[in-house]
Amino acid sequence: IMANDAKPDVKTVQVLRDAANRLRIHSIRATCASGSGHLTSCCSAAEVVSVLFFHTMKYKQTDPEHPDNDRFILSKGHAAPILYAAWVEVGDIGESDLLNLRKLHSDLEGHPTPRLPFVDMATGSLGQGLGAACGMAYTGKYLDKASYRVFCLMGDGESSEGSVWEAFAFASHYNLDNLVAVFDVNRLGQSGPAPLEHGADIYQNCCEAFGWNTYLVDGHDVEALCQVFWQASQVKNKPTAIVAKTFKGRGIPNIEDAENWHGKPVPKERADAIVKLIESQIQTNENPRPKPPVEDSPQIIITDIKMTSPPAYKVGDKIATQKTYGLALAKLGRANERVIVLSGDTMNSTFSEIFRKEHPERFIECVIAEQNMVSVALGCATRGRTIAFASAFAAFFTRAFDQLRMGAISQANINLIGSHCGVSSGEDGPSQMALEDLAMFRSIPNCTVFYPSDAISTEHAVYLAANTKGMCFIRTSQPETAVIYTPQENFQIGQAKVVRHSVNDKVTVIGAGVTLHEALAAADHLSQQGISVRVIDPFTIKPLDAATIISSAKATGGRVITVEDHYREGGIGEAVCAAVSREPDILVHQLAVSGVPQHGKTSELLDMFGISTRHIIAAVTLILMK
Amino acid sequence: IMANDAKPDVKTVQVLRDAANRLRIHSIRATCASGSGHLTSCCSAAEVVSVLFFHTMKYKQTDPEHPDNDRFILSKGHAAPILYAAWVEVGDIGESDLLNLRKLHSDLEGHPTPRLPFVDMATGSLGQGLGAACGMAYTGKYLDKASYRVFCLMGDGESSEGSVWEAFAFASHYNLDNLVAVFDVNRLGQSGPAPLEHGADIYQNCCEAFGWNTYLVDGHDVEALCQVFWQASQVKNKPTAIVAKTFKGRGIPNIEDAENWHGKPVPKERADAIVKLIESQIQTNENPRPKPPVEDSPQIIITDIKMTSPPAYKVGDKIATQKTYGLALAKLGRANERVIVLSGDTMNSTFSEIFRKEHPERFIECVIAEQNMVSVALGCATRGRTIAFASAFAAFFTRAFDQLRMGAISQANINLIGSHCGVSSGEDGPSQMALEDLAMFRSIPNCTVFYPSDAISTEHAVYLAANTKGMCFIRTSQPETAVIYTPQENFQIGQAKVVRHSVNDKVTVIGAGVTLHEALAAADHLSQQGISVRVIDPFTIKPLDAATIISSAKATGGRVITVEDHYREGGIGEAVCAAVSREPDILVHQLAVSGVPQHGKTSELLDMFGISTRHIIAAVTLILMK
Repeated sequence: IMANDAKPDVKTVQVLRDAANRLRIHSIRATCASGSGHLTSCCSAAEVVSVLFFHTMKYKQTDPEHPDNDRFILSKGHAAPILYAAWVEVGDIGESDLLNLRKLHSDLEGHPTPRLPFVDMATGSLGQGLGAACGMAYTGKYLDKASYRVFCLMGDGESSEGSVWEAFAFASHYNLDNLVAVFDVNRLGQSGPAPLEHGADIYQNCCEAFGWNTYLVDGHDVEALCQVFWQASQVKNKPTAIVAKTFKGRGIPNIEDAENWHGKPVPKERADAIVKLIESQIQTNENPRPKPPVEDSPQIIITDIKMTSPPAYKVGDKIATQKTYGLALAKLGRANERVIVLSGDTMNSTFSEIFRKEHPERFIECVIAEQNMVSVALGCATRGRTIAFASAFAAFFTRAFDQLRMGAISQANINLIGSHCGVSSGEDGPSQMALEDLAMFRSIPNCTVFYPSDAISTEHAVYLAANTKGMCFIRTSQPETAVIYTPQENFQIGQAKVVRHSVNDKVTVIGAGVTLHEALAAADHLSQQGISVRVIDPFTIKPLDAATIISSAKATGGRVITVEDHYREGGIGEAVCAAVSREPDILVHQLAVSGVPQHGKTSELLDMFGISTRHIIAAVTLILMK
Repeated sequence: IMANDAKPDVKTVQVLRDAANRLRIHSIRATCASGSGHLTSCCSAAEVVSVLFFHTMKYKQTDPEHPDNDRFILSKGHAAPILYAAWVEVGDIGESDLLNLRKLHSDLEGHPTPRLPFVDMATGSLGQGLGAACGMAYTGKYLDKASYRVFCLMGDGESSEGSVWEAFAFASHYNLDNLVAVFDVNRLGQSGPAPLEHGADIYQNCCEAFGWNTYLVDGHDVEALCQVFWQASQVKNKPTAIVAKTFKGRGIPNIEDAENWHGKPVPKERADAIVKLIESQIQTNENPRPKPPVEDSPQIIITDIKMTSPPAYKVGDKIATQKTYGLALAKLGRANERVIVLSGDTMNSTFSEIFRKEHPERFIECVIAEQNMVSVALGCATRGRTIAFASAFAAFFTRAFDQLRMGAISQANINLIGSHCGVSSGEDGPSQMALEDLAMFRSIPNCTVFYPSDAISTEHAVYLAANTKGMCFIRTSQPETAVIYTPQENFQIGQAKVVRHSVNDKVTVIGAGVTLHEALAAADHLSQQGISVRVIDPFTIKPLDAATIISSAKATGGRVITVEDHYREGGIGEAVCAAVSREPDILVHQLAVSGVPQHGKTSELLDMFGISTRHIIAAVTLILMK
């Protein structure tokens, strides 16, 4: 069988050639019907897709989501029509459905999304597929210890994205020999030639320098492709890159290898003649069937993880929420063996090293490459194989905003934990302080944003995140703060805590993290002056508990103060303003960080940037004078 | 002179060695005084910094910001103390000031920022220095055509950031032979060894594969360093990478090359003995002086650019704002020859190709590498050398959020233009639609956010951006929309336009871009039913014209509707809610996109996601029923 895989017989070769041409015809028809779409980027990849889907990859054709299947990621997502064409040939999409490409209510989008069962990761923002593929391959090799392999088809243009080289370094460092990347080097980008044009040897040199096994191949030669894919399967301890020299628009006269055909269908009046020409080259009428996979993935359960014992903290204990995160994570790891943790060379700052010490086999060091760390987490979490937590300084998740944005489109279930938030993180200065992370994570659809204020609520946030669909972000803080909840306290997403209240409350103050503690100190001070203040801990910033905020505001004369260690825009204050915006007679005063901060000690900076106890007291006093 | 540069005499070598040790001593003292800071990362680079500052680089020691000076970027920003130490030796910082490192009100921050005159770019988020250095080198070689050279000192750990390889590809593509990157390969990262440890040959292979001239050198050997820096200056058409094998903590017994010393000063009780030991190796007492630069940078003016003729559009003309942007840019390019434009392989979508056609020598194709495009723009704009506009699909600026965040800390003056915003960009699907860009850019300090709604206002936005300090973002749209302003209309930042009003207005509707046109259509429709609606175009979303919004709201019974082609979070609606949050009796109803959208035609999607004329009419009707 192996020999046949490497060197298929004459008939198989012709079947694969014919399949490639059928993929071309499907792609022509689909893009003509939609009047848009990237036909020429499909045609360069037709032979690669044909060989992968009908010769090399092993999968259940009637169950595209099966855990034992080989994975395929179309990193050059604009070539979506050829992916859909492949699944027409496999039998999962009707040929007539293809004509609904890019139409409202069709799942055949301009770029693939997991609305289709055979798509694990949404693509369309270039350079992101390989990182996710790394996550899948890592999971297959080290966590599932299973036979499935991972194939990623990339464009040449997207190799300009640095995230690609982050993934290259990751894959060779972890010896991912179950991973194959194919560069479709079709020479032409959107607006002109790609920088290296057909310099396939340069791609090859780069891949080799980054530690990969590499083949250079004619991407339209199905025999050669069969050969190199087989060779790749024999290589141990190295991922394989296949640099396939191709022609954009291959097979279409006057369009093949010509500029200005990016993202365009063929002219309608030429379509029939072109289809006929390609049809004339088809010699067989066999429907190739994929090989079945080896069924050796373990059965796993990743839902309904229980907290087996209440949090082990006493009211008044002082501990940083970012440290509590590490402890909670290690405990969670005991409750479910599919919990994994990813780090970007910061495990001794984010405290994920506590998890690593206890569960080293489930800790993935992703070094200083946050984009790739998020992509790997996304890949590890596909098909529900793991519960992934990735932690970094919250500020550095900005590096991965595009990956996070695409993660939402991918319907991803991953958890991101950002430490060192706000000016309270102190002496390292503004480059290390997250002051826009709430704005970023709030803007991501279906993302739950936790901002716990003590150890008890942090531990609950970790468990809730593990059990919640969609992305979750937990914002943790560096200063040591007092435990304010009892171990028995119950926490729910979207449920705020009223941590201080009396019937005489005059103002509602909403704080989170360090500013909740500043608010409590302000409340203590004001109560000595006979002024009662209600203090609210929102727990989740998204969803925000609007009902509790509105009822508290109404009970305190419509007076609300928000105080946050974050920029004014997109943070807690604006979320609260929006939540009460349809309520008459509620006024909101925002205390937040303005302008680029500087370094200093936590207490100095909270005060300098207007979010300390003193400023809360002043704001309360001023409001009550009105 | 050249021979001496390459092979300094014995005395010079000793002076440079001694200078390196003095830099070590300064770094020890500074970090001991602050009780924190990255001493060991300074010590590995002491010889490199000594040779660069006192032998290789040419600059005016009393005028660190002079345009003719060689540039130095400390990409490994955490080694800030050794940069400050160098400027102590140069004479620009007092030795006693060093002891205020990391203290409030001192400009000697934990990571360097342009609060110091010798810092062009803030660093501290790793992997960003080289992209900025590319911008400076490109400017020097192609725009200034001047002699100054650019040196970038990088850590080994940060080579894991993909942005570094984007910069590598850019520099070799543009033959930046005035650029030298030094990798300080000190083997150790924050939490353990860097992935390649001391595999300096692997770094060298990667650099060569990416098209660079490369030297491998002992980074503590000042003679060898002098030699390779001189060789680099002789190489034509290639940038040079110097892979310097070093030891972290070099020169400090028991700390050199040891783990767990990242980011820590020496123990206080050992400090004196360590300083004495290093002092004992110093043999000379000479204060080396830098060589003066060649003074050949052109005099330039980049302020006060006037619109020489009014915009050439008539009310009612239909044109997309993203196309108008390209036309305005070309016109701006005629008004000032230091206007440059950067593109990420999307010039035929963002219409920056119009500028390129007219001013090809000022157009920089940055291919599909948005992080590097932003970094290059930041570099090009340092020392006020250019007025840089970088354009891309607005969604893909999320890729560069960290670079933009650092740009604010760098006090940068660059202009970003994002096209294809919102669901109105249509058939390509959610991966290509910007729905979080307003949240992102609003969160950046000192960033002006323009959202023009017709051709006239777009042209004004371009001119205002060119003349405005800080970063500017212009959000442009794909659909063709009618011109609504006359060529004589005056536009100012922070000044909204009331585009429709009467004394009987019952509701204020705030829209921008396509939704302003939907609002106008709704107003037309409602006026036929006898309902008058006030319509506001905010023009800039940040700063927002709160005064106009509040006075309009008050004039319309406190009823406000916002409608935006953006997610609810962090966009126009929340900005308006915050702006009116201290006003009683103003209620705001937000219409915005919820959830991940899909592909479709513009009109279909505006309607499906609740921001079309029909939905505005329904919202007005509902509010007036209450």
